[in-house]
Amino acid sequence: MAMIFPSRRVRRTPFSAGVEAAGMSVCTVYNRMILPSVFASQEEDYRHLKTHVQVWDVAVERQVAVQGPDARRLLDMLSPRDLDRMAANQCYYMPAIDRSGGMLNDPVLVKLAEDHFWISIADSDYLLYVLGIADALELDVRVWEPDVSPLAVQGPQANALMARVFGPSVRDIRFFRYKRLAFEGREMVVARSGYSKQGGFEIYVEGQEYGMPLWDALFKAGEDLEVRAGCPSTMERTEGGLLSYGNDMDRSNTPFEVGLGKFVNSPKDYIGKEGLMARSEPERQIRAVEIGGEIPLIDREWPLFADGRKVGRVSTAARSPDFQTNVSIAMVERSHWDAGTRLEVETPDGMRPAEVKDRFWA
Amino acid sequence: MAMIFPSRRVRRTPFSAGVEAAGMSVCTVYNRMILPSVFASQEEDYRHLKTHVQVWDVAVERQVAVQGPDARRLLDMLSPRDLDRMAANQCYYMPAIDRSGGMLNDPVLVKLAEDHFWISIADSDYLLYVLGIADALELDVRVWEPDVSPLAVQGPQANALMARVFGPSVRDIRFFRYKRLAFEGREMVVARSGYSKQGGFEIYVEGQEYGMPLWDALFKAGEDLEVRAGCPSTMERTEGGLLSYGNDMDRSNTPFEVGLGKFVNSPKDYIGKEGLMARSEPERQIRAVEIGGEIPLIDREWPLFADGRKVGRVSTAARSPDFQTNVSIAMVERSHWDAGTRLEVETPDGMRPAEVKDRFWA
Repeated sequence: MAMIFPSRRVRRTPFSAGVEAAGMSVCTVYNRMILPSVFASQEEDYRHLKTHVQVWDVAVERQVAVQGPDARRLLDMLSPRDLDRMAANQCYYMPAIDRSGGMLNDPVLVKLAEDHFWISIADSDYLLYVLGIADALELDVRVWEPDVSPLAVQGPQANALMARVFGPSVRDIRFFRYKRLAFEGREMVVARSGYSKQGGFEIYVEGQEYGMPLWDALFKAGEDLEVRAGCPSTMERTEGGLLSYGNDMDRSNTPFEVGLGKFVNSPKDYIGKEGLMARSEPERQIRAVEIGGEIPLIDREWPLFADGRKVGRVSTAARSPDFQTNVSIAMVERSHWDAGTRLEVETPDGMRPAEVKDRFWA
Repeated sequence: MAMIFPSRRVRRTPFSAGVEAAGMSVCTVYNRMILPSVFASQEEDYRHLKTHVQVWDVAVERQVAVQGPDARRLLDMLSPRDLDRMAANQCYYMPAIDRSGGMLNDPVLVKLAEDHFWISIADSDYLLYVLGIADALELDVRVWEPDVSPLAVQGPQANALMARVFGPSVRDIRFFRYKRLAFEGREMVVARSGYSKQGGFEIYVEGQEYGMPLWDALFKAGEDLEVRAGCPSTMERTEGGLLSYGNDMDRSNTPFEVGLGKFVNSPKDYIGKEGLMARSEPERQIRAVEIGGEIPLIDREWPLFADGRKVGRVSTAARSPDFQTNVSIAMVERSHWDAGTRLEVETPDGMRPAEVKDRFWA
């Protein structure tokens, strides 16, 4: 692993001071911003996440704010998912596609008002696509990146910790719903969501100045809960089959290939509808694939072979301490995607046996 | 500095094996791809660049390919710079803006044919803006990221080294022009350009498989020229006033603020023309600012003060061994942008004296 060179272009977050004090040892760059990757060790972070509660700096989940008279019209042009029944306190996982149905991002859409939305993005400047549409058609809408930085609270004790800081009503927030709750007099969107399978919340912190006070309040309130700084865990997310844009999918993939077909249901004439419909029977699809032997960290795709022919690729892989095997996320051709199919995967350290599973581990 | 976590999302380049063997010690992430930052040390890399010749993996300069019957129409909608006299072997530095005149990128446009262009981008997914325009208007054009990875050869001995590998005709390539020259039977675009003031070339390497053979050929041919692996040098580029998108400018800036007003001359009705014209008299502008004392590495903007009032910000700064001072790139308000104006800059290590210069150092 190389060190990362400091520059303004790779942005700090409102929580960076807390993250550094908590001992971040390894990080990555996501949406041109620092995202922690490891604090104590991969395995220790993973074990703690599954046992206690963690606070995650996920400010890298930048918001694309869309507001104005044409906001809903613009969203209807962008979303393959039907937005008609989206409630005013709801979050939608939404495939973001281009004219041909290729994935540009896999954001969470947050509805703030009928004419005001946040598109909470994965790692690509989806803002620029939204802006391109708005500028080309001269829509009456503003598209910008607001000063909003999500902070996630994840783990089995997330309810307990959040109730202490935001009050007991956090317990009533349903999955992918949010409430506006006050911290030091400032209302914040608090959603039940997050990039783990352990349960928890994401707090959309508006304004740099509330970052460290909220961070500190969570750590103070959670001392006896053994709260720690954490971050998305490759081990945990791979066990759970949580996908990562740029790792497990990119513009060459359709929503159908990455298991998001159920969110393609808009009756509107959105951009890419025709392209998508022509590709609704995928020839390859995301699968859970178990890998035997010892594997290195993955920093490029690993080809999957059957009888010497390439039939897919692994894009995320990690050792799973709990399942005592190597878990991975792969794109596999139809001919070989049935559960139980035995394959080989080519890692930089050599060939390893692999098997398609019927589901992810957790 | 933290270590960077390996993942497929942060992409390797066709030259990564060479870069690693050459001893890259520090890197950054640029367009979701690894960009080397330091090999031996910042100062040793800088000194070598100014004396000999270096090979740079700048594959991070991704290309936005635009091809088809509507390619030129689309470019005319995007470019504030008049493209009418652009030659078929020419490269244009082109401000890329939105509807209001805000900078989205500062790419180099490479004309391959009347209906085929590459937009060689800085660090933002400008592809998505171009694609948004094309998709919204259903233009008859293809917009994609081709498998093209620039390799730069920079330094006083660049002519000598390149002539040995591509033949003597490289010497006749004029600044921001290119020739198609063969390497191992494969034609490549070879342009006289690059992100240093030391002179040199950028080779647009099409196809992964030519990456390491070309890398190795350059090192073999340049042994007696003391060729080394290098990378953009913050010290050298700051002395020369070479700007960096994301560091020195972003969407909140106009081309006029960042000294690109001379490239705003298109007679066409491009997107953002009206917005830009309303902002043609900037209230702040990029300046060379000299900073006294010792300074740390810069990883956030440093505010500039005059009499306790904020009048700008430093976005890039470095010690200059050759000029024996600290050189920086700053955005300064009109009231304080005259050469000789004395200011103070707030670094994380404390206040430092600063002075606006009449020009960059080199």
